[in-house]
Amino acid sequence: MFKAVASPYLVPFDGTFRVAKSPTRPPAKAPDKKDLKQQLEDAVETLAELQRILYAYDHHAILLVFQAMDAAGKDSTIRAVLSGVDPAGCEVYSFKRPSETELDHDFLWRTARCLPQRGRIGVFNRSYYEEVLAVRVQPEFLDRQNLPDRPGLDRAWEERFESIRDHEKHLARNGTVILKFWLNVSLEEQRERFLARLDEPEKNWKFESGDLASRARWPDYMKAYEAALNATSIDHAPWYAIPADSKPYMRATVADIVVRTLQSLDLRWPKLDPAERAKFDEMRKLLG
Amino acid sequence: MFKAVASPYLVPFDGTFRVAKSPTRPPAKAPDKKDLKQQLEDAVETLAELQRILYAYDHHAILLVFQAMDAAGKDSTIRAVLSGVDPAGCEVYSFKRPSETELDHDFLWRTARCLPQRGRIGVFNRSYYEEVLAVRVQPEFLDRQNLPDRPGLDRAWEERFESIRDHEKHLARNGTVILKFWLNVSLEEQRERFLARLDEPEKNWKFESGDLASRARWPDYMKAYEAALNATSIDHAPWYAIPADSKPYMRATVADIVVRTLQSLDLRWPKLDPAERAKFDEMRKLLG
Repeated sequence: MFKAVASPYLVPFDGTFRVAKSPTRPPAKAPDKKDLKQQLEDAVETLAELQRILYAYDHHAILLVFQAMDAAGKDSTIRAVLSGVDPAGCEVYSFKRPSETELDHDFLWRTARCLPQRGRIGVFNRSYYEEVLAVRVQPEFLDRQNLPDRPGLDRAWEERFESIRDHEKHLARNGTVILKFWLNVSLEEQRERFLARLDEPEKNWKFESGDLASRARWPDYMKAYEAALNATSIDHAPWYAIPADSKPYMRATVADIVVRTLQSLDLRWPKLDPAERAKFDEMRKLLG
Repeated sequence: MFKAVASPYLVPFDGTFRVAKSPTRPPAKAPDKKDLKQQLEDAVETLAELQRILYAYDHHAILLVFQAMDAAGKDSTIRAVLSGVDPAGCEVYSFKRPSETELDHDFLWRTARCLPQRGRIGVFNRSYYEEVLAVRVQPEFLDRQNLPDRPGLDRAWEERFESIRDHEKHLARNGTVILKFWLNVSLEEQRERFLARLDEPEKNWKFESGDLASRARWPDYMKAYEAALNATSIDHAPWYAIPADSKPYMRATVADIVVRTLQSLDLRWPKLDPAERAKFDEMRKLLG
């Protein structure tokens, strides 16, 4: 199975991740904005090449999961990192409020339908992790799910973590490489970005008054993220907690992790077997 | 979680199931054909009533999985047991040779998309179990699956069993009641039924020459069934190994297990809360 590539932002697999110690800002020694932009451009170009081999080799699927508080930059990071890739080999799904039909299935059903096939990159903008994040902070959402058995709430999240771990292990074993990014924005930076949405006309459409509600529950959300990342970061489905207060740094960092992961997979252009190749001369003759 | 209802055909949960000791014929004391037909009719009627409550209550989904050798009677049993049920609350999926797109996903993907929602009965005529049955007997099918990692073959089936157990546990915890039926037909009875397909014009369409191939591998199939049933029969997702040499007995037995399972779920017509009910008088006035 695939193994996580190293990074200072890799969430350790031993349950010791702490949100309070996880940086929201780049390190002091980080490259400047211009260099980060160049790094991103180079990574996007490499990613486009790797994706063509991924597609031709047709053995792995790549699943990129993005989770974050509002305004952390999920949409713009996905756009920045993946815009160079052939759209025929890349699908992005944004999961918002679930439909009645989706709520009437187990909580992995609606995302499972959208899993990428071999040779493709699939991106989940929010995901089944909402079921242990937003739903955990607002457990009244569970009422809409019509579950016949309601274990105690603590037990409910443990069961969901287990379901997620089992699901991801199964996917990893069957060829899906799962990378999970938590874009870690600070409460202050979110405030700045919300103000920009209110002040700049071309950003107004991004603002929803409901977004403010989650600010009031910030500590609960941080607790839920910490529990979820600790319970589900594992070598074959790692979480990376990316500082999100600087968008150029965040984008370059995510792109770098995706590129190095693809490079680690030993992707190869398919080789024809000699018998098949021997027929090529015949084919050439037939083509005249 | 749901618990399996008792039956002499329930596959025990301790790995002691043996195909060689599992009957293909009804017991000597079984009711006669006419009585069995009446039992089936009564069960179908009860099932139709229970399904209406299941639908209104909207907390459980029912998944019926049918696996068997060819000509054991999967299609006719599904038809006989479920023809009385409101088709709006019942979906049957037959899984045949997988498509390229399906093969390019993990082996649970194509069936997961078809899982029944709460309030519904879903029927799988063949299922993900083919992945540890037909594929185990003919492991060359694995070549079409483009898996990046190929564990040793023995390990491959154990991993698949684990994926299936994890998947079913997750579904059970989230409200799906899973009943699995292996229709256990004998090699001799299959021969009779194949001959009937060749001899009776209205059965000709059912015959495919490829069906004979699996007769040659009968002992391998029986080994694969024994391993799969032992590895995956569990209280919340039980297997029943039903004698299939007598169709009337098989149908009545399957219907009885389905009915008793639904009865065990404590399904209830939804009750309105008093506040809602209090508004009824207003509504009546509005309707004039």
